Amino acid sequence: MNATVPHRIACAEAPDLPHAHWTNGWRFGNDVVLSGQTAHPATQRAADAGQPLDACEQTLVVLGRIEALLRAAGGHRHNIVKTVVYVTDIADKDAVGRARRAFFGDHLPCSTLVAVSALVFPELRVEIDAWARLDVDLRTSTSTT
Amino acid sequence: MNATVPHRIACAEAPDLPHAHWTNGWRFGNDVVLSGQTAHPATQRAADAGQPLDACEQTLVVLGRIEALLRAAGGHRHNIVKTVVYVTDIADKDAVGRARRAFFGDHLPCSTLVAVSALVFPELRVEIDAWARLDVDLRTSTSTT
Amino acid sequence: MNATVPHRIACAEAPDLPHAHWTNGWRFGNDVVLSGQTAHPATQRAADAGQPLDACEQTLVVLGRIEALLRAAGGHRHNIVKTVVYVTDIADKDAVGRARRAFFGDHLPCSTLVAVSALVFPELRVEIDAWARLDVDLRTSTSTT
Repeated sequence: MNATVPHRIACAEAPDLPHAHWTNGWRFGNDVVLSGQTAHPATQRAADAGQPLDACEQTLVVLGRIEALLRAAGGHRHNIVKTVVYVTDIADKDAVGRARRAFFGDHLPCSTLVAVSALVFPELRVEIDAWARLDVDLRTSTSTT
Repeated sequence: MNATVPHRIACAEAPDLPHAHWTNGWRFGNDVVLSGQTAHPATQRAADAGQPLDACEQTLVVLGRIEALLRAAGGHRHNIVKTVVYVTDIADKDAVGRARRAFFGDHLPCSTLVAVSALVFPELRVEIDAWARLDVDLRTSTSTT
Repeated sequence: MNATVPHRIACAEAPDLPHAHWTNGWRFGNDVVLSGQTAHPATQRAADAGQPLDACEQTLVVLGRIEALLRAAGGHRHNIVKTVVYVTDIADKDAVGRARRAFFGDHLPCSTLVAVSALVFPELRVEIDAWARLDVDLRTSTSTT
């Protein structure tokens, strides 16, 4: 068995906090594994200011953070092959969809979206789990049809 | 780094809709990545007719749809290595289990099952996220015991 | 396409039950795929005895079970690259974190944590979905910073 060296992804936009019990991102060869990302602390600041971020705004912040992690790993947004989206209100599904469409354009990864009973902070409306491969660029795809 | 060409999986049973913000399935070499699948719109038609599909029926529709996507990718049901099952009522776990057993026989992929607070349409009782590899056939397995 | 022989992971700590409709673990080459693990039946015995296991205790049992599956596959806890943690009460997030930190030390896999509306038994507070690679050891990591 050949070992694959784990590479810890570090970037200012999604820093690993000293007390955290998880790592935000790892790269193993071409595979990028990420922790679920949220728009915290931007969501907290906005809520404290009386102007909470809606689901579309939160989704764009989250996708930008995922992209920052991918860039730090040597990749880009079109390496994302799948997202699992957790929302706290299923009525937000269309808002999340608009943000996804704006972010990915016509190069759409797979997606699963379910509503959960709570995320780690009360002002969070969306958390996204992304799976990415640096050897894949969805802009270069072929199709069976 | 060698690029892996992304292949968009297209099939009539699970078409990618023009307004969708996701792709139902991608193949990257031997790896198949899918979006969470539901029994919509069959569930909606059945509900409108006053005969909603129960969890076992929905699960069989969903697994059939996943199989259709795998066939379009050149594979089959025994390429599925794991499913994550989201139900809206935990009491449906046994009904889902009966459908899984009928579908997979003795060649059982891994499974995770949790109850979520909502899926994308109110008549949905189950959504399934599947992970598959075309180079794996669970019927050819060996065991440590 | 070269076939990868699926290897069913079997261990006493997480046995596959005759009536189950899933397999607890599969190994495909270096990749280990697992079913979501819980602390059942220890949770049930403790609840019946009037001393239910709290979230931290349950998490340690679950992580130990995942480790037992990995050992049976020829690996260890530092092969775990990601966990998805489902809790039934979001207030348990810190207790889960303490258990993760105790278990993984400074070699922390990615993690996603959401609260769901129910797990398969009422006394369960946490279920963990783990992804592991036998060719990866997080203790040997490098970093971009």
